[in-house]
Amino acid sequence: MPQSYKVAILGATGAVGTELLELLAARQFPLADLKLLASPRSAGKTLTFQGEELPVEAVSEDCFKDIDIVLASAGASTSKAWASKAVEAGAVVVDNSSAFRMDPQVPLVVPEVNPEAADQHQGIIANPNCTTILMSVAIWPLHRVQPIQRIVVATYQSASGAGARAMEEVKHQAQAILNGAEPQTEAFPYPLAFNLFPHNSKLTEQGYCEEEMKMLNETRKIFGTADLRITATCVRVPVLRAHSEAVNLEFSEPFSPQQAREILRSAPGVKLVEDWQANYFPMPIDATGEDDVLVGRIRQDLSHPCGLELWLCGDQIRKGAALNAVQIAELLIERNLLKKREVATV
Amino acid sequence: MPQSYKVAILGATGAVGTELLELLAARQFPLADLKLLASPRSAGKTLTFQGEELPVEAVSEDCFKDIDIVLASAGASTSKAWASKAVEAGAVVVDNSSAFRMDPQVPLVVPEVNPEAADQHQGIIANPNCTTILMSVAIWPLHRVQPIQRIVVATYQSASGAGARAMEEVKHQAQAILNGAEPQTEAFPYPLAFNLFPHNSKLTEQGYCEEEMKMLNETRKIFGTADLRITATCVRVPVLRAHSEAVNLEFSEPFSPQQAREILRSAPGVKLVEDWQANYFPMPIDATGEDDVLVGRIRQDLSHPCGLELWLCGDQIRKGAALNAVQIAELLIERNLLKKREVATV
Repeated sequence: MPQSYKVAILGATGAVGTELLELLAARQFPLADLKLLASPRSAGKTLTFQGEELPVEAVSEDCFKDIDIVLASAGASTSKAWASKAVEAGAVVVDNSSAFRMDPQVPLVVPEVNPEAADQHQGIIANPNCTTILMSVAIWPLHRVQPIQRIVVATYQSASGAGARAMEEVKHQAQAILNGAEPQTEAFPYPLAFNLFPHNSKLTEQGYCEEEMKMLNETRKIFGTADLRITATCVRVPVLRAHSEAVNLEFSEPFSPQQAREILRSAPGVKLVEDWQANYFPMPIDATGEDDVLVGRIRQDLSHPCGLELWLCGDQIRKGAALNAVQIAELLIERNLLKKREVATV
Repeated sequence: MPQSYKVAILGATGAVGTELLELLAARQFPLADLKLLASPRSAGKTLTFQGEELPVEAVSEDCFKDIDIVLASAGASTSKAWASKAVEAGAVVVDNSSAFRMDPQVPLVVPEVNPEAADQHQGIIANPNCTTILMSVAIWPLHRVQPIQRIVVATYQSASGAGARAMEEVKHQAQAILNGAEPQTEAFPYPLAFNLFPHNSKLTEQGYCEEEMKMLNETRKIFGTADLRITATCVRVPVLRAHSEAVNLEFSEPFSPQQAREILRSAPGVKLVEDWQANYFPMPIDATGEDDVLVGRIRQDLSHPCGLELWLCGDQIRKGAALNAVQIAELLIERNLLKKREVATV
């Protein structure tokens, strides 16, 4: 078994791709080689990695040869087109898109929650949606102690969830409005600066948008509780980066805020942020660039004897996407899941 | 009974005061006289009303003489100091502050919900908090058909809830951030531009902030249901004007979205805003300057057989404050509650 690994990033030039590069360096991921892949449009560019300029190559039939791990973050259609080719070439694909998340053959993994699910992979492991990852990390430690019966969540999702271009759009819109001009829209259907709107993903027949359905379905799959009752309202807000969520939890017995606080204080991937004297709780600007999900304002729900309210913020490009993918890659090494695949395909 | 009335605005120079002036003119309120009152600091200014410059007078012992209606919007301490003097002078006070809202002697009125409560007034009628008014108008028509059992609400509250100065602060902060400078904070404890934070009102022992407790207590009082179970998470967002709310309702029997839609389509003070094809629902920029509460995204709650999800936006300076106060004043005339008082005090 090699001590270091050949990694390819598919979608290297996007917001998550950039973050993946940073994280691989910062976490000293054991790299034997790093290949940057993108659409033919982005090929020819270079990106800096640990002081070195690396070329961005166009994704192609033979580019996955000898690659151990592919970190894919180029959208569902790209993943659908290339993931199986990477797997055939012997790589394990950690896919950040929605393409395979609900595929029963594909583990959906949040390393703090269900690392053992990765063991069953058949070449692809899916990275959940950002809002799902952030909520899962925060509530799983409570769910383990006492199963959650129902979740009512409302989200406050930043522009960066729609990519780097969307972040720029909000800034341009804000400047236009401050200048007394009309804000221009392109990435979003409506102006987001100094405004907000229900998440603009496609609406399903039941009236939930796809972003909301992801929270419902993915959380159930990650927790392994097909009957967990969840409802969600997803909203885009004019924040540049980091999502927030107001989470209402129902248990079958009372769960004291003090006990929840004690559990979350030592929970992996969670940082308890509560200063009741200063009225200081998690904020997007404090979550930006942080690995941990910031959790606070834990309260007994006054409307339900077994209810608990909590508030969280998390960097959805980092833990909500890139960091979770790198953690899955680390998990593949720790649990010896790359070697296993090599043996299986020989 | 006079055909027109002497009205005084206490707190005429504030954001709500300005809106009161506009509304009295736009609604052709039957004015015999309009007196503008403010703190000594603002006295001497003039404000334009229907093309005329009106002087702002300092509030004083004898300024309420002959006044029929006082529209008070100068904060709780000012209301506590002056309301009883206005009542002694024979006026009815419509108070926009929190000073008297939970006083059992004082009706708390949303004209679309509980106009009859005004009949019991003893000189003061309280105007509820903005978030409470907006939610009440939207859900009361449903509650009348089938009593609501529980409410889980998350708010998205604009800067204007903290006054005109706070709106300017958010704009200045946004400009600073766009220029790469540090945002300055004064009205708010933390930067709000491109950020958000749990509502910064005082925290109570139970961990709810005062803004949240207002939603719980005031809604119960207005609806006349002391046992209505409500929980709220109130959050400030970088929107200039108009609040939004994600409201989860539980009934004891299923309430179909279609029935809710039909009811709300003809409900007073409500405008149904739902274009499922275009993914277009209420937004703060569309609610700004509107009298109606915009309601939409009505969905069957997938986590509860008797649950309903809805989304609303409303102008909290207008319906959330000034308009509701003017409507109460109109109610006093319609229900002959000024004359009654005059007789009662003679």
